[in-house]
Formats: sequence, C-alpha cells, structure tokens
Amino acid sequence: MELGFATFADLAPGQTPQQRMRNLLEEVRLADELGLDVFAIGEHHRPDYVVSSPAVALAAAAAITERIRLSSAVTVLSSDDPVRVFQDFAQIDLISGGRAEIMAGRGSFIESFPLFGYDLEDYDELFAEKLDLLLALRAGGPVTWSGRHRAPLRGARVFPQPVQRPLPLWIAVGGTPQSVVRAGTLGLPLAVAIIGGEPARFAPLVALHRDAARRAGHDPASLPVGINVHAFVAPTSQEAADAFYPPYAEVMTRIGRERGWPPTTRQQFEAMRSPRGALAVGSPQEVT
Amino acid sequence: MELGFATFADLAPGQTPQQRMRNLLEEVRLADELGLDVFAIGEHHRPDYVVSSPAVALAAAAAITERIRLSSAVTVLSSDDPVRVFQDFAQIDLISGGRAEIMAGRGSFIESFPLFGYDLEDYDELFAEKLDLLLALRAGGPVTWSGRHRAPLRGARVFPQPVQRPLPLWIAVGGTPQSVVRAGTLGLPLAVAIIGGEPARFAPLVALHRDAARRAGHDPASLPVGINVHAFVAPTSQEAADAFYPPYAEVMTRIGRERGWPPTTRQQFEAMRSPRGALAVGSPQEVT
Repeated sequence: MELGFATFADLAPGQTPQQRMRNLLEEVRLADELGLDVFAIGEHHRPDYVVSSPAVALAAAAAITERIRLSSAVTVLSSDDPVRVFQDFAQIDLISGGRAEIMAGRGSFIESFPLFGYDLEDYDELFAEKLDLLLALRAGGPVTWSGRHRAPLRGARVFPQPVQRPLPLWIAVGGTPQSVVRAGTLGLPLAVAIIGGEPARFAPLVALHRDAARRAGHDPASLPVGINVHAFVAPTSQEAADAFYPPYAEVMTRIGRERGWPPTTRQQFEAMRSPRGALAVGSPQEVT
Repeated sequence: MELGFATFADLAPGQTPQQRMRNLLEEVRLADELGLDVFAIGEHHRPDYVVSSPAVALAAAAAITERIRLSSAVTVLSSDDPVRVFQDFAQIDLISGGRAEIMAGRGSFIESFPLFGYDLEDYDELFAEKLDLLLALRAGGPVTWSGRHRAPLRGARVFPQPVQRPLPLWIAVGGTPQSVVRAGTLGLPLAVAIIGGEPARFAPLVALHRDAARRAGHDPASLPVGINVHAFVAPTSQEAADAFYPPYAEVMTRIGRERGWPPTTRQQFEAMRSPRGALAVGSPQEVT
C-alpha cells in the first residue's frame, strides 16, 4: 500500500495566491522528506484555488524533491489538449528523474469548459476522445489520429519523450460506473474520489473495475486502485474534529451553494467520521 | 543594461533528454548564483531540443533560484492558447515571487503548427489575434473577446493572477519590420534575435520600434530593447573559436539543410566573429 497527499491548493480566507503557492511547495518538500509515496495537485479555474496548471506546480515540486511521485489530481483532460498534457508531464518526468504521473478525469467543476471553448453537452465524448489520443501518444511512436474535438495528427512525433515508458496514467472517477468500466477495459489504474458517503459504498466500483479489466484481457492484479479521502490527524479525536470542522464546513457549504447541497452541519460531519465514515478525521489510532 | 542567458536546451549528440534537463537546471541555478539578470528558455517540438513547454521548465527553475528573472525565448504564441499561456506564467510568477516574463513570438521553426492544428497561411494573423487576447488577459479584469482562431470569452475571469501587474511581456522578432512596428505600436518591449548577420544591420529595426512607439503615444524611453546573440568566452580568442566552432557548425548545417542554407564554413564563422560580427566568440577582452 502507498500513502500520499492530494491537494487542490485552495486559498484560505485572507491568504494571497503567492503565500499559498509557497506553502504548497513547502508541503510537497516536507512530504518528500517524510517518505510519503505520492503528492498530487488538482486543476481549477476559480478564484478559490491557486493552481490552474498542475504541470507547472508539479515541475516546481519536481525540482525540490528527491523521491516522492508527483501526480495531477486531476488533469481535466476533457478541456485540454492531450499533446500539451503529454509534453508537459514528459518534461516533469525528465526534471524528476521518472517520478511523474497523470491522473486524468472529466472534471468535477465545469469552469474550464467555457474558458477553453468546449460544450458541456460533449462532457463524456470529449473525455473518451482525448483519452484515446493520450493513450496513443503515451505509446511513444509516431501518432496518426483523428477525432471530432481536436485537429488530426498524421505520423506526428511528440517531444520530449519521458523517462518512464509509458508515463503512468490513472483514471480518476467520482462514482460514475461507466467511467470505472472504461478504466478497467483500457487496463488503466483507477483513482476513486470519496468526498462524501461511506467508503464501503464504493467497493462495488472497485469490483466493477476488476471485472471490466478481466473481461478485456487485463490482469486485475496488475492494476492498482487508489482512493482519495479527506484526512486530518491531531493528538486526540476531539481536537482533530474541532480543528478540521470549521474550514471543512466553510468549503463544503460554499461549493454546496453552487451545486444545490444543503449546508454542512456538525451532526452530518460527525456521522461521516472514521472509522465507519468517509472522513478520516481523528487521533492517530482512529485514523489508522 | 542587463545581461542574461537564453537557451533552446538543445541536445548534444549522445546526450539523453534527462541529462540535458538536469544540466539546464544546473545552468539556471549557476546563472542565479553569479548574479545574471535573466535566464530564458525556448519552445521547440523537435527531437533535437528538450523543452516543448518553456513554462514547465521555468517553473522548475523558479523553485531553485532566488533573484534571476525567468523568461521564455520564445513562447510560440501563434500555436498556443493565450489563456493557458497567461495561467502558466502567472503560476511561475507566484512560484518565483514576481520574476516571470513572457517573450512571445511567431516562431522560427514551424513544427508546432501542424501539431496543434494551425495553418501556416494564418502565420501572422494567428500571432496578431492571440497577442490581442493575451494583452486583454494581462490587464487583469474580466475579459470579453472574440476572434477567428480561438473560442470567444464573455466576461471571463482567469486564475490565478500573477504577482506582477501586468506580467512583463516582450515581443520577439527575427527581423520582420512589421513585427517591430507592432511591438512599438502596442507599447511593448522588443527582443531582437541576431542569429547571423552584423548587429549594425539591426539598428534600423530598433529605430523603427522607437518611431512606432512614439507615433502611438508611448514613451520610447520606457520600452527596453533586448538582443539575443550567440556568445562564447574562453581564456583566449583562439581557444574560444576552436571550442565553439564544431558544435556551432553542426547545428547551423543541420538546421540549414531544412532551410536551404549552404553548409557553415570556418571562413564564414571567422568573418562573423566579434567585435564587428554577429558572434560574440572570443577572449573576455574581445567579447566585452
């Protein structure tokens, strides 16, 4: 099992983007020193998050770390150009000496679609098509490809090439079974985002991933599965909950306003806490 | 006057991309320690150069330097998305604490056009249109924009915002008078690439830039002008010429084959050397 951090680099109230970026790089340096396995950074196009290009932030992280693997969480592939994504992560792989990974997803927020000229009606087709191109690029040879949402390539060679062949690629899902089946069928590792709800509810998705892989002729044992959950540790469970709840409630209530969720309450928060809930918030014993 | 390095991060024969990337970051770290003013990295989509995204390499450079300014040389704006370019350099600006610059150009090599689905027939229109959008984004407010080669924006806000307001932007030219007039008219600094030919021949371009700026109501004294020339220093002029000539001839002959130039000769090389020529190659006294 591997353990790491994934962050969206959200801005705290009153914090400047420059301070947040500095803290982000301090966090990844510390995670590297402590021996954690992976550090992942998300892509957002909003005033409340500081990283719109995970590749740029990860390149800085690559230059100041030694061992930790560096991933996006996620690259919103649907609204990006797979050639640029491949080139950017190939360069991070060169900078880091083979520690880059791409975690590709359809995106949870939707700001990137109008910003880069895409239609939300093509939400799934965009991802499928761009993933197809990214897989072709990842194979390393000349690429001939055509699709609806990107200019065609004819025998194109793309530079630079990464250290790792192929560059590790994960599919990130929020819970959509079709996305899970796609990952399994393509023989790609799965990353499940568990932002709310009991982790046990997600076990069937992992079984679905393994089944899809097996049916497509891939060995499920060779495909890792990752989960991303909120986690917070303090000396005691009470201290952890008291420290974590206010910023958690602020963020979930703010985002919930955009999505029609009810405001977060302490009661709901307590019900979701570890060991049986979706939030690993507590003392070291409880969270372990 | 400021002094710095610009590099295309070209691969030496037998060198791996990973070695080259490591050397590149060592070079920028050393340049920073020595107190040089700027380090600039070019964009190429070819097997003989290691950086296809200057922003990714510059982000790594930003994380390991303290004072040096970091620029692209150039960002091929014509085949890129100005929103991504702005976001990437805004993040470098946050990582570096306000040391990022963009040097935008139409591109000398043309590989990026078919790779990203652009037509070389639109070579100049693409640059003009994308520069227009980049200038709008650089102003910092909501952007409403439309053009022929990129999806429109309606009151779009772009994140993150940089430390420097506005983010420094230079126009790089190879010698096309129209490009020089455009830079002056827009009130933007000019970077002249002098890869061959006598520097004195480029003086009229600088005068043209100043005239265009003045006519458009900008103070020419507020607009810096930069030149990029090949430079190589050794204890004596003879040693410098003998060490520099073989790789120089190899590169110029290789690229010349694609462009229909005659092979580079030592005689031609000697004629271009400093003090009166286009190549600053020699002893410290001669190059100064």
